[in-house]
Amino acid sequence: MSQPTGACPHAWRHQQQHRGRMWATSRAFRRQLVLLRSLLPSPPSPPPYSFPSVAGRFFAPSCSSPSSTPSGSIRASHAMAGSAVYEADAEAVVRRITPPLDRSRHKGQAGKIAVIGGCREYTGAPYFAAISALKVGADLSHVFCTKDAATVIKSYSPELIVHPILEESYSVRDDERASVSSKILTEVAKWLERFDCIVVGPGLGRDSFLLDCVSNIMKHARQANIPTVVDGDGLFLITNNLGLVEGNPFAILTPNVYEYKRLVQKVLNCDVNEETAAEQLTLLCQKIGGVTIMRKGKADVISDGKTVTQVSTFGSPRRCGGQGDILSGSVAVFTSWARHFIMSNEEPKEKSWLSTAQESSITCF
Amino acid sequence: MSQPTGACPHAWRHQQQHRGRMWATSRAFRRQLVLLRSLLPSPPSPPPYSFPSVAGRFFAPSCSSPSSTPSGSIRASHAMAGSAVYEADAEAVVRRITPPLDRSRHKGQAGKIAVIGGCREYTGAPYFAAISALKVGADLSHVFCTKDAATVIKSYSPELIVHPILEESYSVRDDERASVSSKILTEVAKWLERFDCIVVGPGLGRDSFLLDCVSNIMKHARQANIPTVVDGDGLFLITNNLGLVEGNPFAILTPNVYEYKRLVQKVLNCDVNEETAAEQLTLLCQKIGGVTIMRKGKADVISDGKTVTQVSTFGSPRRCGGQGDILSGSVAVFTSWARHFIMSNEEPKEKSWLSTAQESSITCF
Repeated sequence: MSQPTGACPHAWRHQQQHRGRMWATSRAFRRQLVLLRSLLPSPPSPPPYSFPSVAGRFFAPSCSSPSSTPSGSIRASHAMAGSAVYEADAEAVVRRITPPLDRSRHKGQAGKIAVIGGCREYTGAPYFAAISALKVGADLSHVFCTKDAATVIKSYSPELIVHPILEESYSVRDDERASVSSKILTEVAKWLERFDCIVVGPGLGRDSFLLDCVSNIMKHARQANIPTVVDGDGLFLITNNLGLVEGNPFAILTPNVYEYKRLVQKVLNCDVNEETAAEQLTLLCQKIGGVTIMRKGKADVISDGKTVTQVSTFGSPRRCGGQGDILSGSVAVFTSWARHFIMSNEEPKEKSWLSTAQESSITCF
Repeated sequence: MSQPTGACPHAWRHQQQHRGRMWATSRAFRRQLVLLRSLLPSPPSPPPYSFPSVAGRFFAPSCSSPSSTPSGSIRASHAMAGSAVYEADAEAVVRRITPPLDRSRHKGQAGKIAVIGGCREYTGAPYFAAISALKVGADLSHVFCTKDAATVIKSYSPELIVHPILEESYSVRDDERASVSSKILTEVAKWLERFDCIVVGPGLGRDSFLLDCVSNIMKHARQANIPTVVDGDGLFLITNNLGLVEGNPFAILTPNVYEYKRLVQKVLNCDVNEETAAEQLTLLCQKIGGVTIMRKGKADVISDGKTVTQVSTFGSPRRCGGQGDILSGSVAVFTSWARHFIMSNEEPKEKSWLSTAQESSITCF
C-alpha cells in the first residue's frame, strides 16, 4: 500500500503498524486462520474407486519432489512419526477454489449446504455448522432437525432455512415407525439433490430411531453422489455401521481425538499409535475404502488413503464446544467449491482426470 | 466538520480521506446502494387501465428526448439487446419521494407495510422483508404468517407486529377447510385497508390450503386498490393463477432468474431470450395486463409494459438467500411513498393525471 500524498509520514507509518497489529489480533483474522485449516491437499494418482474423492483432487506432489510446487501448497515437508507428511498451504488452495464475486452470478451458485442434525438435546451444534457455511461464503444453508430443535435453531438466525422433519423414538409409536421413517426420507429426498454438500452429525444425538432415519438419508445422498461431511454423532453412527461410508470417495470424516480413537479401535482393532500416526491414518482410510479423514488435533492431519497432509496453522488455542461444528460447516463449503472448481476445469470425459488436472494447473497449490 | 485543535493537519486530512474510503466500502453504504435499486422510473403515457400503476407514474422521458430530464433520473440511455433501455437515477427518485422527517407528522404517515408469508419451513424470508420495510423508513411493519412461524418471527425482532393467522393443510381437517379459510380472510381483511402496500410471498411455502387462503387475500387487496408486491412463493402462486394479478396496475412482480424463466414459459410459452430481453419483458407485462415487473439480475430491469428502465448501480456481489426479501420489503415502502407523493401532488379530478404530473414537475426525475 503506498503512502497517501500529503499525509504525515510518521503518523501514516504508525497507522499502518497499528492496522497490522489490529488485523493480526482481530476476530476476523483468527476466524480466517481456523477456516484455512479445513482443506485437504493430497498427491496425484489414478482414482482407485468409481469416483475420485473431491478432496483428493487437490493433491500435493510426491515426497521426492517438493520443489516442483508452482504455487506454494507445500511450504515444508515433515517426517511425521514414521511417514512423510506435507504441510499444506491451505490459504493458496482456498484462494484458488473460492468462486469469484461476479455480478452476473445468481443465488445458489456459491454453494447450497445442508446440515442433518439437531434434536431435543442439541441445537447449538447444527446452528454453528450451518451458520459457518454462510459465513464462509455459501449462498444457502439448510438444517434438517427434529421439531423440538427447529424452533430454537430458527430463532438463532433468520439466515438459516430450518426443516422440522426428523423424529425421535419418544415421539413415534412402534407401529408407526416404518411409515414415519419413509415419510421423513421422502421429505428430505425432495431437497437432497439441490445440495452441493451435506454435513451429517452436528447435534444429531444417539436416538436409535433418529439414527436409522439418518442412515437412510446417507444412503440416498450417496446414490446421488452428494459429498458428505461426517462429524459428531454422525461418526458414532458410521463407526457402528461402516457400510454407510465404505468405498465412498465423497465422504469426509472429521473426528476429534475420542472419535478417532473409537474409529481406529473399530476398524483396525488396535489403539492409536502416535509412533506410526501417519501410516495408521493412511491405513484407516484404505480400510474404510477411499474416504477422506481429517484427524483434528494440535495440527489437523488429513489423508485419503494415499498421502498424508497436515495443516498446522494455529487458530484459537481454546477447545470449547462448537469449534468442531464450525469446522464441519466450513469443510462442506470448501468441498463444494473444490468440486465446482474441478468440474468447471474438467476436460471432456475421454481424457483421464490426472491429465486434466495437470493441464488445468491444479496439480499443486 | 472542523479540524480538531492540536491534530497533525496531514494526519487529519488523511483521516478524512480514509473515512471517505471507509464509507464507500462500508456495509451501510453498500446497503444503501442495494436499496436504491428498487425504484421504477418509466415514461409518460395516458393510463390504459382503470388505475395507472404507481410505479408507472415515475416515468422516464421518451427515447428521443433524454436531454429533457430536469433533475437527472436518466443518466444514460442504453440499447439493451434490441430495445431502448434507460438507466434510472434511483437516488434522485428516492430523494424526491421520501417523506420529510417533520415533527408535526404522526405514526403511520411514513408507511404501513404488511408481509403475507412465513410458514413451518420458512421464517427468515418474511422477517427480512418486514424488517427491511422498517429500516428503509416505514413506520409500521406487520407479518401475517402461520402459528408455527409467528413465535420465531416475533423472536427475531420486537419491532414487527406478527399475526399468527394463516394455517397449513396439516393443521386443518378437510371438513373444516371452508370455515377456516373464511375466518382467515375475515381476520386479515380487518387489517388490510390500513396498509399502504402489502408484500405477498416471502417464505409463503407451497402448501395448497395456505395458497388458496392467500389467493383470497390478494383478491381482497385488489378490490381495495392496495399496491401488492409479489415475490418468492407468491410468484409460484400467481404463475399458476395469473388471474390474481392480470390487469392490476397496482401489482409489482419481482422475479429472480428462475422465477422469471417460469413466468416467461407460462405466459409467453417460450424460453427467456437474452437477445430480445427488453421486448420480451415489455410483452410479458402487456400479456399479464399492466403489471410492473422488476427482473432481478446483474442489472435490475423494470417495465410496466410501456417502457423498460434499468438500475445497474451495484450492491453486494454476494447472492445469498434473503437478499430478494430485503428488496421486496424495500420496494413496498418506496411504492407507498411514491403513491403518497403522487396523491399529495394531485390536482382536482377534472385534470388528467398526465397534465397533473407535468405541472407538479414529476414528469422526469
